[in-house]
Amino acid sequence: MSPSPYNVGLLGLGTVGSAFAKLLEERSEAIAALTGRAPTLCGVLTTSRGSFQDVLDSSELLVELIGGIEPARQYLLDAMQAGRHVITANKQLVCEHGEELFDAARQHGVQLRFEAAVAGVVPVVRVLQESLAGAHVERIHGIVNGTTNFILSEMERGASYPDALAEAQRQGIAEADPSADVSGRDAAAKMAILARLAFGTPVALKDVRYEGIEHLHADDMQYARELGLGLKLVGTAERLNGGISVRVHPTFLYGGHPLASISGPFNAVTVESDAITEITMSGPGAGGRQTASAVLGDLVSVICERAAPAPPAQPLPLVSDVSSAFYLHMEVADRPRALAAVAGLLGEHGASIKSVSQRGLGENARLVMVTHPISESRLREATRLIGELEFVGSVPRTIRVIEEEFL
Amino acid sequence: MSPSPYNVGLLGLGTVGSAFAKLLEERSEAIAALTGRAPTLCGVLTTSRGSFQDVLDSSELLVELIGGIEPARQYLLDAMQAGRHVITANKQLVCEHGEELFDAARQHGVQLRFEAAVAGVVPVVRVLQESLAGAHVERIHGIVNGTTNFILSEMERGASYPDALAEAQRQGIAEADPSADVSGRDAAAKMAILARLAFGTPVALKDVRYEGIEHLHADDMQYARELGLGLKLVGTAERLNGGISVRVHPTFLYGGHPLASISGPFNAVTVESDAITEITMSGPGAGGRQTASAVLGDLVSVICERAAPAPPAQPLPLVSDVSSAFYLHMEVADRPRALAAVAGLLGEHGASIKSVSQRGLGENARLVMVTHPISESRLREATRLIGELEFVGSVPRTIRVIEEEFL
Repeated sequence: MSPSPYNVGLLGLGTVGSAFAKLLEERSEAIAALTGRAPTLCGVLTTSRGSFQDVLDSSELLVELIGGIEPARQYLLDAMQAGRHVITANKQLVCEHGEELFDAARQHGVQLRFEAAVAGVVPVVRVLQESLAGAHVERIHGIVNGTTNFILSEMERGASYPDALAEAQRQGIAEADPSADVSGRDAAAKMAILARLAFGTPVALKDVRYEGIEHLHADDMQYARELGLGLKLVGTAERLNGGISVRVHPTFLYGGHPLASISGPFNAVTVESDAITEITMSGPGAGGRQTASAVLGDLVSVICERAAPAPPAQPLPLVSDVSSAFYLHMEVADRPRALAAVAGLLGEHGASIKSVSQRGLGENARLVMVTHPISESRLREATRLIGELEFVGSVPRTIRVIEEEFL
Repeated sequence: MSPSPYNVGLLGLGTVGSAFAKLLEERSEAIAALTGRAPTLCGVLTTSRGSFQDVLDSSELLVELIGGIEPARQYLLDAMQAGRHVITANKQLVCEHGEELFDAARQHGVQLRFEAAVAGVVPVVRVLQESLAGAHVERIHGIVNGTTNFILSEMERGASYPDALAEAQRQGIAEADPSADVSGRDAAAKMAILARLAFGTPVALKDVRYEGIEHLHADDMQYARELGLGLKLVGTAERLNGGISVRVHPTFLYGGHPLASISGPFNAVTVESDAITEITMSGPGAGGRQTASAVLGDLVSVICERAAPAPPAQPLPLVSDVSSAFYLHMEVADRPRALAAVAGLLGEHGASIKSVSQRGLGENARLVMVTHPISESRLREATRLIGELEFVGSVPRTIRVIEEEFL
């Protein structure tokens, strides 16, 4: 007996949509062997052809790969109202309208899956929703933007920021307008989604503090390497003082950190919880075929009816003043006096120095250091005062450092 | 309305069983909020108290944490026949009797889950069964034994094998009789299970070639470091020439490999497939609470009825003669002549040399090299002939090397 077809409607036929259509055809037989149903494209909607209603009517499940908010949002709501399961790779939509979509899925008893919206092929949505559904997640650190990780890897090899960006664009890793990536906004949207899943609290993009990589200097990365540090754009979502904090910053990592070895256009996520200690997952962050593969994993789960409805959200307060170790870079006119004065000011604000590296002589000297953890507000006050010292050129450049916490 | 209880029967109350009972109590309320059912221990069977029939009668699901083959196997079969879902952390049982258990689960329409049997908290079973269910997996590399990874990490810091083992035993990471771990047999059983899941072909322990770490020398690790290599006990399961190969060997990795940075008692698995490129997952490999957490993830999935019945197995041939790059270590009496002769013999057998490091002088000289890939049978023939050279002390020590394939 041949397996019955499982009718899949596809919205969007761009890079990911085309890759998905191809992958679905290649793997349909294997999926039928596994699930008893052979997934088959029953209709495709593009900007130039097809009608949404026709695709909807003929399908059991809709895959949304259009991107953007509208009409994607309305299509998903209409599809769920009509009793269809839906899969989307649309991070912007899930971030900005997640609660509305989750509510619709619960209300209509259908599945809403979005693994491809967060970290490429890295199955962090599934692991949070299933493997760790019974765990109390304390913190997530993520490299969730492959474009910026590629640029930072190039800069670690000595490239300037403009040259590294140009190389990323040449290789098709960065878009012509790279602002969503390099500003940290893309990573912020993904961290908002992860925080929602991990902590069950609604998190909007406006709740996420983010900082991009445009202002980074390659020489900071070289000095930092002497201190054993590598630079990543790290998103963090954590429980803190009875609330949560979600943020994205350029961050130095010591060599022992699980994210330190992630280079090139890769994504990686570390989930920490008391019971598990930590799980780290990594893989390519982009690429049409990779994203299509994540969509296909969701499709198999829907066919198998592994439903994972998100429970109603429970609001938790957002914490903004977070403690962190910091890297500081200063140009100083008189090194010994500057070191003493800086150490004194930091000490008065509760920050002790973990390591120091000094470079250059006389008027051209540089002082680079890493502090032990200090709250951001106190650090800002200390660096403001440091900038007013007569033998320090300007307010120090600061970058967060994750202290080595792992083996 | 308070959530209805979900009755869980527990077989075994050792380290993992006790941790599971505690974790279940801690997390029951949170799981109830997620699933609508509050999991509750309804009965416990230990060697000294309880009756299997009583535990079975009162439960909806049985968790088997006894270990060993019997009576664990019979308990699981009886439970499934009685319509109970089952979860086990028993790698030996799943490896040696997997097909019988999978058949029973299919026949009785119940779920059989065993995430904790393979890689501690690393959710590789779920990712293979769900995220990658639609993918064509080409290869898995895994560090799936935390004890040996800890010992190798100690040896990389200069400890001898006996000292590293003693330290592992002192910390409770190695058992008093460490033979299952250090011989590679534990890792081999886990790789057999992963190969079964990835390739859908039955794989028994006897199909897995394995080699342990007892014979390794700390000085090999130091020489190798000069070549940029780190040593791990790596399990490999891959498609090869229309069949599969499953094996466990001490293996050198270049720094860029995703497994190279895994140190201490951790597990990590890299899954490669055309569509995804690769996913790497890592986390603690052992510990009662960590294992209990993996069991709890399975429990939540069972409550949510995310069933993943394994399809009937399709046999594939096993490939034994696998190509690999190799590290060679030789004691030589005359370095220049030895290098020329060794290079010549390797070349005649199809192996070219990638890098060489020479140490010492005169009669005490050592020649350390890494070859490009060569089939194992041809390498064995070449090293046999090298051992017969008059100015080479003995048959070279050989260790496999994974060539850098990643960014």
